[in-house]
Amino acid sequence: MFTIGNAFRLTIFGSSHDQYIGGIIDGLPAGTFVDSGYIQKWLDRRKPGINEMTTQRKEDDKIEIIAGVKNNYTDGSPLTFLFNNGDIINKHYDFIRDNPRPGHADITMFYKYGEYRNYEGGGFFSGRMTLPLVAAGAIAMKILKDHGITIVSYIKSAGSVEVNNEQIFDEDFVYNYGSRIPDAKADESLHNVIMNSIKEGDSLGGKIKTVVYNMPKGVGEPFFNSVESEISRAMFSIPGLKGIEFGAGFNFSKMRGSEANDEFYIDNEDIKTKTNNSGGILGGITNGMPIEFNIVMKPTSSIRKKQDTVNLKTMENSEIQVVGRHDPFITLRAVPVVQTTTAMVLLDLIMSNSSKNKW
Amino acid sequence: MFTIGNAFRLTIFGSSHDQYIGGIIDGLPAGTFVDSGYIQKWLDRRKPGINEMTTQRKEDDKIEIIAGVKNNYTDGSPLTFLFNNGDIINKHYDFIRDNPRPGHADITMFYKYGEYRNYEGGGFFSGRMTLPLVAAGAIAMKILKDHGITIVSYIKSAGSVEVNNEQIFDEDFVYNYGSRIPDAKADESLHNVIMNSIKEGDSLGGKIKTVVYNMPKGVGEPFFNSVESEISRAMFSIPGLKGIEFGAGFNFSKMRGSEANDEFYIDNEDIKTKTNNSGGILGGITNGMPIEFNIVMKPTSSIRKKQDTVNLKTMENSEIQVVGRHDPFITLRAVPVVQTTTAMVLLDLIMSNSSKNKW
Amino acid sequence: MFTIGNAFRLTIFGSSHDQYIGGIIDGLPAGTFVDSGYIQKWLDRRKPGINEMTTQRKEDDKIEIIAGVKNNYTDGSPLTFLFNNGDIINKHYDFIRDNPRPGHADITMFYKYGEYRNYEGGGFFSGRMTLPLVAAGAIAMKILKDHGITIVSYIKSAGSVEVNNEQIFDEDFVYNYGSRIPDAKADESLHNVIMNSIKEGDSLGGKIKTVVYNMPKGVGEPFFNSVESEISRAMFSIPGLKGIEFGAGFNFSKMRGSEANDEFYIDNEDIKTKTNNSGGILGGITNGMPIEFNIVMKPTSSIRKKQDTVNLKTMENSEIQVVGRHDPFITLRAVPVVQTTTAMVLLDLIMSNSSKNKW
Amino acid sequence: MFTIGNAFRLTIFGSSHDQYIGGIIDGLPAGTFVDSGYIQKWLDRRKPGINEMTTQRKEDDKIEIIAGVKNNYTDGSPLTFLFNNGDIINKHYDFIRDNPRPGHADITMFYKYGEYRNYEGGGFFSGRMTLPLVAAGAIAMKILKDHGITIVSYIKSAGSVEVNNEQIFDEDFVYNYGSRIPDAKADESLHNVIMNSIKEGDSLGGKIKTVVYNMPKGVGEPFFNSVESEISRAMFSIPGLKGIEFGAGFNFSKMRGSEANDEFYIDNEDIKTKTNNSGGILGGITNGMPIEFNIVMKPTSSIRKKQDTVNLKTMENSEIQVVGRHDPFITLRAVPVVQTTTAMVLLDLIMSNSSKNKW
Repeated sequence: MFTIGNAFRLTIFGSSHDQYIGGIIDGLPAGTFVDSGYIQKWLDRRKPGINEMTTQRKEDDKIEIIAGVKNNYTDGSPLTFLFNNGDIINKHYDFIRDNPRPGHADITMFYKYGEYRNYEGGGFFSGRMTLPLVAAGAIAMKILKDHGITIVSYIKSAGSVEVNNEQIFDEDFVYNYGSRIPDAKADESLHNVIMNSIKEGDSLGGKIKTVVYNMPKGVGEPFFNSVESEISRAMFSIPGLKGIEFGAGFNFSKMRGSEANDEFYIDNEDIKTKTNNSGGILGGITNGMPIEFNIVMKPTSSIRKKQDTVNLKTMENSEIQVVGRHDPFITLRAVPVVQTTTAMVLLDLIMSNSSKNKW
Repeated sequence: MFTIGNAFRLTIFGSSHDQYIGGIIDGLPAGTFVDSGYIQKWLDRRKPGINEMTTQRKEDDKIEIIAGVKNNYTDGSPLTFLFNNGDIINKHYDFIRDNPRPGHADITMFYKYGEYRNYEGGGFFSGRMTLPLVAAGAIAMKILKDHGITIVSYIKSAGSVEVNNEQIFDEDFVYNYGSRIPDAKADESLHNVIMNSIKEGDSLGGKIKTVVYNMPKGVGEPFFNSVESEISRAMFSIPGLKGIEFGAGFNFSKMRGSEANDEFYIDNEDIKTKTNNSGGILGGITNGMPIEFNIVMKPTSSIRKKQDTVNLKTMENSEIQVVGRHDPFITLRAVPVVQTTTAMVLLDLIMSNSSKNKW
Repeated sequence: MFTIGNAFRLTIFGSSHDQYIGGIIDGLPAGTFVDSGYIQKWLDRRKPGINEMTTQRKEDDKIEIIAGVKNNYTDGSPLTFLFNNGDIINKHYDFIRDNPRPGHADITMFYKYGEYRNYEGGGFFSGRMTLPLVAAGAIAMKILKDHGITIVSYIKSAGSVEVNNEQIFDEDFVYNYGSRIPDAKADESLHNVIMNSIKEGDSLGGKIKTVVYNMPKGVGEPFFNSVESEISRAMFSIPGLKGIEFGAGFNFSKMRGSEANDEFYIDNEDIKTKTNNSGGILGGITNGMPIEFNIVMKPTSSIRKKQDTVNLKTMENSEIQVVGRHDPFITLRAVPVVQTTTAMVLLDLIMSNSSKNKW
Repeated sequence: MFTIGNAFRLTIFGSSHDQYIGGIIDGLPAGTFVDSGYIQKWLDRRKPGINEMTTQRKEDDKIEIIAGVKNNYTDGSPLTFLFNNGDIINKHYDFIRDNPRPGHADITMFYKYGEYRNYEGGGFFSGRMTLPLVAAGAIAMKILKDHGITIVSYIKSAGSVEVNNEQIFDEDFVYNYGSRIPDAKADESLHNVIMNSIKEGDSLGGKIKTVVYNMPKGVGEPFFNSVESEISRAMFSIPGLKGIEFGAGFNFSKMRGSEANDEFYIDNEDIKTKTNNSGGILGGITNGMPIEFNIVMKPTSSIRKKQDTVNLKTMENSEIQVVGRHDPFITLRAVPVVQTTTAMVLLDLIMSNSSKNKW
């Protein structure tokens, strides 16, 4: 099903070469203020063509809310929105229909949907399908923000470039850096790596860090709706995302309990932990420390370099060079997607919080 | 909610110091053969006291199926099973009620459930709650096995010990190795590390690798029910699990598209890929190559070493030394939990496969 | 939530005075043929202004499918459709905002949504919200029809007029009768009653009978997803519908078991029942006999006659005369809504049938 | 699936000739007081053998809560309970396996589950499966009661006997009357009819009225989770229930809008309606007037009279006389089932109320 969430429930529809992509949010109570400008700001941050490091494809990412909102307030019915895909040119896709791109969903679309597959421009497997995620996430982020919660995402590393900046950022700070790595020197290095990658017709992967400040305590449910379960489920719906780790994450495999455990202390009549290896989550539930997690994006699969593939009709070996204007470093544009999607999941968890149901 | 799955739906209940822990599986069609011996084999593999590297706590892990099965065949109603917790001694838990263990869910239970929290023995946050996961997973694994699908899990690394064995294992092979690392030399090293850790009253973390052979192609749904979304959601419900990566996982952040993409070729009238960096999943859907993923477990939080904590009543700093017989290396016992839980998720995805609904 | 169904899942959105009303169907497998002409035929049957017995309001009920369909075949992603509400005149609704119409949802909207309620034209409580039900239902009906299943609905009685026609009709037959009562004499009588009712500024209620021929046996689930549970849940979402009975229905209260039980006999190597008091459903599951049920619609609440109401601002007694072009006999236009909605529920039950899940 | 409810979610399991029948309630917040005595009172009211008008079968209906409750308070995990079916005698069922009882689910079990069907004692289609409904409903009723809501159910008519008592009853009042018709004269008549029916080896149907006083306003969701949708869905899961009508119900088919509409007036600074034809529900949402609905139960299908059936093995006509101790008038024992199930649905709607989600 194309639906995620319990109390705040998003359904997405459309495809990259359909006329529209859109989404429906069911569950927002009547009287929620909807700030279109704020939503558009986030949509613009994932837009192609932001700078020379992204694809130069032109896309109209203007949100059109067609139902559920009157005079900027929700009315209790599903908030429905569209993105017009504009002029669609399908001519590039005849070759791809029969010669799947390595690393791309072309082949699994073929396995799953056979002759009826929607293959043009990646169909509904396109990265453009993250538009409704960002729209819904921005709506959630605004609500969280109004309650004092801040969600920060930025690139932590890509290739051999790593961020070196220990400051606490706000949700906007990283967008001052062209490559979304909030460190002037690393930004310059990464810029060079990306521009080089474009020249070579290749692409690169990257790691994104997310930190959430000021989360209420006691949010998340034991087991199947743990904070980690819900965040990871949503994250893995982002095309190209292949790993997630919370707190110390994979480093835990080299740690001992005495290092890994976050010891408690009293700070200003509040309980804090000295370290935050658990990433703000214990037993799947928030403990009031910042939520911290990293995700990894694989390199864009569409590259200009020649690659081996097969022809699905003749079932013979074949070759492909992917033409078109593709992102050399999709991680850059994934930053606001990860950031807003995190907001969506957290708002859903807060709205569904089982310990608040008491009547 | 304490429920996971769509077509194969598991609900768990009980807690470690209740009289029972149990589960309900709704969705198995009538006439499914239920092999109790096979289920018990998997339950025994997660049992405490298997060898000197696990806790010496005695637990009765005998499954009792109380509904939904007649003469070893399901009847179409929910398959319900219990585990009797046996004699429960609660005396150790008075101190813990007020002095939460670092790294443990004690503190978040307090935040979420307040004075009504079920704190004895970790309550329903206990590792013992993985019993119903293993039972349900073993039922699923038997069905998958009968269709030729093999699921293998083993320890890949812990501390500085790493597996060095490139063979293809079957689902049982790793259980020949005491520490669940399938490599005689590494097994010996890990044994020593664990025994040392017991002596020091400390614990250690580890990484588990899972490989699924022979998965049908085209399983998994786009976006929110992708294979990665569903597996990760289930994995993060395992207590202590803090990260997951598919295929090349976090290494993708250092790779270029030309390295990362798995090129296709024809092999025996079938389509294969030369590498398997995508871990058998493209666009959230299986491509017929082995599904591969790693998870990381943090070190057991209950350790004998003295740690700083706080007193929830007085709101003052405090100290704790966790007594009792705890696992020094819970990753060892997590192997069959990860393995069988993978089976449960994959069977659910196969049973729910949207491309098979056509009437 | 604004969603119904399991395997065939409909979400509706919009409101009568929004720009659009629409729906999303998630779950149709790729390659399902979508016959727009057939859908439009059913939409036209619920259209206002069909004849002088319905409201003379002009509404554009042309379906626009904006996603999920390529060249008339579904592609496996959500089938999304819109109805443009066209020019909206809101001037009539200022009075209604503060003076709720008796028998209408105006008052409960006020209780539930307060100042943010969508009150114009009934908002999302409008009968116009049945458009997406008919669209989704028509898609389902076409699939059922292609499998030999026929669904017939018609008016059984209204006021003192009752149908007298024992023929077996097909799905189209009743639309030869202006008042949707398939009996020439009754049709004339009902026509007169309705025209009279219009003159008096009043309205009337009615009863609709539905019969489903050729349903497969063994469809429906025990208890909460019984055929009766699923049909009734869907029916009661139709505005103005206040009762449902299956088979002998409320007459069962006057029957004895020996009369009520449908005895079995062998007919042509098939098992039939001599009577069909159970309406084709035993234990919530189909038995191969025709499914039969009646529903009742209350009279349209919007009438020209003066009625007592209250003013929500002053909290004083008040009076109202509802202006505008309202249906005197909404049951007439409800016939195709009931008929197609039945199709939607039955297709969902067939697609979800637990006894077919075996792998 | 064997699950109902959203925020208050009940899953049932077991079957009449299994060792246990039971249920799980997921969603009760930690700290809810669970009053076992109150639950048992309701279970005893549906118990067989209450008086000479019910089956003389002996059943142990003692609830055993095995998880989710500590010292009479819920702990936030699923409240799980069992009923031991005691000694089971299966000898009567060999004949029934091959010769389905008219009016019973025997035949549809055969169609749905084939050779693996659970046919003894009706399996999981048995009326005994209403035990978990009553248990869960009684828990809900206690919570509603503590908030001032009263739910009353009683027999309104059976055969030609009708209640004649215009008093407002409380939830216990009807249990002063042996036949559950709260009118001394009608009670005597019905008693005679039932005793006669027993003598003749026949059974009879009946109608149950339910009234809910003091429901909060604004509960229920538009469309698919309307109060009518949710109540009817739950009601039709009660074996033998074949119809439901809200407020004026089927009488609406003979009414005009000017009679049917409930006019408003101000009463003590509150808004009331002069009549209550809508049964307290407008647009699927409560308006603060009493919720009123009737349901109809068909006569018990198991009767001693000889009936025609077929033999499923030989596929030839056959005859059956149902032996055993069956209820001649199951409506009597259905009264507390309807009453408590109503409570369960209403509490779920209150807990899920979308207009309360605002954060």
